[in-house]
Amino acid sequence: MRTYNFSAGPSMLPTDVLEEAQRDLLNFAGTGMSVTEISHRNKAFEEIVNEGEGLLRELLHVPDDYLVIFVQGGASQQFAAVPLNLMHKGRADYLVTGNFAKKAYEEGKIYGDACCVASSQDKTYSYIPDLATVPFREDTDYVHICANNTIFGTRYTQFPKTKAPLVADMSSDILSREIDVNQFGVIYAGAQKNLAPAGVTLVIAKRSLAHDPLPACPTMLKWNVQDENKSLYNTPPCFPIYIATLVLRRLKRLGGIKAVNEINEYKAGILYDFIDDSSFYRNDVVKKDRSIMNVPFVTPSAELDAKFVKEAAQAGLVSLKGHRLVGGMRASIYNAMPVEGVRALVDFMKKFERENQ
Amino acid sequence: MRTYNFSAGPSMLPTDVLEEAQRDLLNFAGTGMSVTEISHRNKAFEEIVNEGEGLLRELLHVPDDYLVIFVQGGASQQFAAVPLNLMHKGRADYLVTGNFAKKAYEEGKIYGDACCVASSQDKTYSYIPDLATVPFREDTDYVHICANNTIFGTRYTQFPKTKAPLVADMSSDILSREIDVNQFGVIYAGAQKNLAPAGVTLVIAKRSLAHDPLPACPTMLKWNVQDENKSLYNTPPCFPIYIATLVLRRLKRLGGIKAVNEINEYKAGILYDFIDDSSFYRNDVVKKDRSIMNVPFVTPSAELDAKFVKEAAQAGLVSLKGHRLVGGMRASIYNAMPVEGVRALVDFMKKFERENQ
Repeated sequence: MRTYNFSAGPSMLPTDVLEEAQRDLLNFAGTGMSVTEISHRNKAFEEIVNEGEGLLRELLHVPDDYLVIFVQGGASQQFAAVPLNLMHKGRADYLVTGNFAKKAYEEGKIYGDACCVASSQDKTYSYIPDLATVPFREDTDYVHICANNTIFGTRYTQFPKTKAPLVADMSSDILSREIDVNQFGVIYAGAQKNLAPAGVTLVIAKRSLAHDPLPACPTMLKWNVQDENKSLYNTPPCFPIYIATLVLRRLKRLGGIKAVNEINEYKAGILYDFIDDSSFYRNDVVKKDRSIMNVPFVTPSAELDAKFVKEAAQAGLVSLKGHRLVGGMRASIYNAMPVEGVRALVDFMKKFERENQ
Repeated sequence: MRTYNFSAGPSMLPTDVLEEAQRDLLNFAGTGMSVTEISHRNKAFEEIVNEGEGLLRELLHVPDDYLVIFVQGGASQQFAAVPLNLMHKGRADYLVTGNFAKKAYEEGKIYGDACCVASSQDKTYSYIPDLATVPFREDTDYVHICANNTIFGTRYTQFPKTKAPLVADMSSDILSREIDVNQFGVIYAGAQKNLAPAGVTLVIAKRSLAHDPLPACPTMLKWNVQDENKSLYNTPPCFPIYIATLVLRRLKRLGGIKAVNEINEYKAGILYDFIDDSSFYRNDVVKKDRSIMNVPFVTPSAELDAKFVKEAAQAGLVSLKGHRLVGGMRASIYNAMPVEGVRALVDFMKKFERENQ
């Protein structure tokens, strides 16, 4: 039996995508080989990469003057790649709204004058700072944000208007909602939440910003080199790219990102409405900044939280334990989580409340 | 029908490994989830990583004072990681015996005084330079070699004895033959030839060398950070690591690397003996330096080479086209290529020779 898997990442993939991958695992596209065995220079694989890039451009309306590449190393590697590709003046502003936003900021400091211009650490990252009052500095190379904060369950509903190019880590909400790529200089995302198995990272960047990496930048981290080689500078992570392409096909079939976003708002609404109506469960995030991907919540006590996580798993609702920095529970409800999974969770929450009040 | 796939990488995986992965793709270790969907902090996945590391230590007799980590980015990323972790004096020697050895050398020059102390480029990399006459410099951080040269079909049968730590790219022969890890400061290998699907890279390094990366080193490229976090500093490439562990289990069942090496010598022997006895086919590598993983060969003409590649593919022997730098054919016969595959190739070569003499 397939469980409902609320893991924050790696996380659920659509069952039909996994079934297709399973069926073809020893014989991809009639080649008599696994997609994990064929050369990345094989035409059948090049078509997969090109299709994946094309679907990303189509679904996210990526302008032609932006590169779209598949790379390795996760968002954590982009924390270094961002300054190594962009930091020509040696100055960048960071908004620290969570654990990964902070890690990006710490990595930025290795390469130059990275400045934390706003933070919500004072209240356990339970809100997004007021963008109107952020003291952005003059003459910086970029402003860095994390669009959705997986651990704390917040997200930007508006993005800051900045003079310097805006760089966004969208690992936990890429393809979950419509965005205007033109607002951003660079978008990057580890794929293991909304797009693919772990091991591939998406970078979308304005080519005019990405053309001149710093001399110390490792070749593999140079966005322009990866772009010039159409993500095939060296052997890419073929299996995750293949699955990403299957997932992107599915998102297109569902009606594109507008339709996907509507489903996501609907799913999150079911859960937040129930929590807000309950006197037993609580979500501590400022309402306007609530994530529709990651929903942290608590019961009245840490003991009941632990009991909840255990009994939910027995009922087939797994990986609900909150991050150690927050405690309690967290339901990650990415694109691949069906509405039925959220309904099953709410049903279980009702039952647990009745039994433990 | 499964083909015999002579691709240089990504390349064949053992059919029984792929079948196990296929069977469990939607339900890993009874979790009701795919191995691509579970958190890397899930106990079932941590066990896979630990087992993989343990099997590598056992099969390669890795001493306890060496780290063994799974990272991302391929050997190409290690071309930068090597100087960024080791180049404290700013000087390193490189032996340039092929395309990737040269790329490693070029990347080394970004970070310091990288010197090519020996090269076989004068004869299209068809031999390994005489190690007794290499003018190694004094007071360098390391000496870099590529143990097996995929494109040109050469390998070191002896490794240089160097004062500075020896660093070896073993992407195309890791786990194919016995080595004495103590001879090396660092061994690294992209996994997509002998170990796993593309997307994971193995690094084995003496901890006393890896403890102090240069300040400019991206955190993700720091071997000590990856070691301290047991390859889980951030989300690792879970699926390739899982397959690697299945492959390592299989190598152990086969009797370990000594037994695997005997099979590989036997397979390569079948092919080289046939080529050497033939007046139609030719291998241009100096005999003592011949690779047992990659066997390039030519027919009497480029036209016949092209015909050979085409007709072989029709007979289910695929990816035999040589690299564009060399032309002709190349049979990559890594661990996963069965003896039957090499026999089938030789049978086809005999038939082709009869028909085209």
